[in-house]
Amino acid sequence: MPDCFADRLATAVKETSTPLIVGLDPRWESLPSCFRDDGADRATAYRDFCLGVIDVVAPLVPAVKPQAAFFEQLGWPGMKALAQVIAAARERGLLVIADGKRNDIGSTAVGYAEGWLGAESAWGADALTISPYLGDDSLEPFVQTARDRQAGLFVLVKTSNPGGRFLQDQQSDGQTLYRRVADWVEGSAAEQLGDCGYGATGAVVGATYPEQLAELRVAMPHAWLLVPGFGSQGGTAADVAPAFDDRGLGAIINSSRAILFAHARPEYASRYGEAEWQRAVEEATRDAIAELRAATSAGKL
Amino acid sequence: MPDCFADRLATAVKETSTPLIVGLDPRWESLPSCFRDDGADRATAYRDFCLGVIDVVAPLVPAVKPQAAFFEQLGWPGMKALAQVIAAARERGLLVIADGKRNDIGSTAVGYAEGWLGAESAWGADALTISPYLGDDSLEPFVQTARDRQAGLFVLVKTSNPGGRFLQDQQSDGQTLYRRVADWVEGSAAEQLGDCGYGATGAVVGATYPEQLAELRVAMPHAWLLVPGFGSQGGTAADVAPAFDDRGLGAIINSSRAILFAHARPEYASRYGEAEWQRAVEEATRDAIAELRAATSAGKL
Repeated sequence: MPDCFADRLATAVKETSTPLIVGLDPRWESLPSCFRDDGADRATAYRDFCLGVIDVVAPLVPAVKPQAAFFEQLGWPGMKALAQVIAAARERGLLVIADGKRNDIGSTAVGYAEGWLGAESAWGADALTISPYLGDDSLEPFVQTARDRQAGLFVLVKTSNPGGRFLQDQQSDGQTLYRRVADWVEGSAAEQLGDCGYGATGAVVGATYPEQLAELRVAMPHAWLLVPGFGSQGGTAADVAPAFDDRGLGAIINSSRAILFAHARPEYASRYGEAEWQRAVEEATRDAIAELRAATSAGKL
Repeated sequence: MPDCFADRLATAVKETSTPLIVGLDPRWESLPSCFRDDGADRATAYRDFCLGVIDVVAPLVPAVKPQAAFFEQLGWPGMKALAQVIAAARERGLLVIADGKRNDIGSTAVGYAEGWLGAESAWGADALTISPYLGDDSLEPFVQTARDRQAGLFVLVKTSNPGGRFLQDQQSDGQTLYRRVADWVEGSAAEQLGDCGYGATGAVVGATYPEQLAELRVAMPHAWLLVPGFGSQGGTAADVAPAFDDRGLGAIINSSRAILFAHARPEYASRYGEAEWQRAVEEATRDAIAELRAATSAGKL
């Protein structure tokens, strides 16, 4: 029996000494031109690019987070590429958090849960992001499946985009909606704690709202937080500091574009450029790790 | 330039004289045994079963609604089957509403929107269901893409499951959250009306809450309503009557299991059984159409 997801994540964070995870968000127009010029179809280019990123980051970070949307955009060949990317990442020892933001009503949610979660499932992800609008009974099948398969979940609580306020920030019965979801997440997480002190049900909380991040860390003491929005979306290492406990655990911080397409960033372009795009990925990853170590309790890892 | 989605849907409903649509929700354990016994892999069985359903229902109903979850559960081979099912349905003249309940933040939502919507997209669906928890700025890319491609959207407003109340029924500023989403849908729908009087942005409103269905029909006079929960989930033809305008337009009523697996329902099993499962599908479809005609303004079509 493998360890529960929460403990596997804690172990991976400690072994790599960083909470940084790399989002695999291939975008055609941003790929190094070697992937766009050789006549390969887009799905193959996405796969090969992501495999190249995985080669570089596998020794450096605990997990990758493939974004389903970009693969799905290409139809089933894109989904086949996604499956290959997930398998390659797992083979390299990375945890894989599939960013699908899936959900449906109960009996249909089972389909998503069983398909995505667990090493023996069709997609073989270690964890999945899910959306709560359909309600608590739509989340339960994911919790059950995650428990059965030692997998993890990250429920959308407070997202990094400005429009998140449209529903998430609405006040009801004296609390925000995002807090209502957070309370559910905490209840679920606390039901099945790993040795690390966290549960299998976690929360997505954006880096762009540091005040809410601090509030939600306190509200969900037993939930791993998956924090997007660091880097290209404007969240700084200081902004994400409140996401951690005092051991440097409890949060993983995602960076996608700032790492994947580092070859085009001014600070790396002049030294590496497109031809050495993997060296740019490596240096951007190391720089992000250093930033997080300097500004957060992840420095204690 | 084809007609806008709202008008294509109105035309299809009028031509078939019914608002009934058939949900394509293949479930392994419910398939007629001929699909389970012959050693075919599950993805092939799902495809062949759905193609058999499409053969029967294409002359009878305006649209089908494939449920992404069940295909996705099988990994990329399932997604390939889904693509084949969508293409076959369109070839038979059916409109295709992909039930994916997708969403992400803006720049990523574009990936889902462009992938799913429009005849030239990877999946080639006429419309897609989407989830609003991420906020209004996450819905806009879908509206834009739908407009560009004469496609449609159905935003989750009030779902058919009991747990929908967890967020949707919360009161904020004197109104429910589902009403807040409904007001956004109405605003979006009214911006681009077809000749039929409805727009490309519609709403998912469950059959199991007739009172809210009536409220939401009034709140969204320019939005097509996609109504799940009729049949197996307990919604009756009388329950969905408030969804229609007085021409019998403005709503489409989904039935999945009650039609797909009619061969196992007591009222059809004795006459048809598994061997004649397609005749059971046909009779269940005709019976559902008749029920809706008798109990709703769809009788005027």
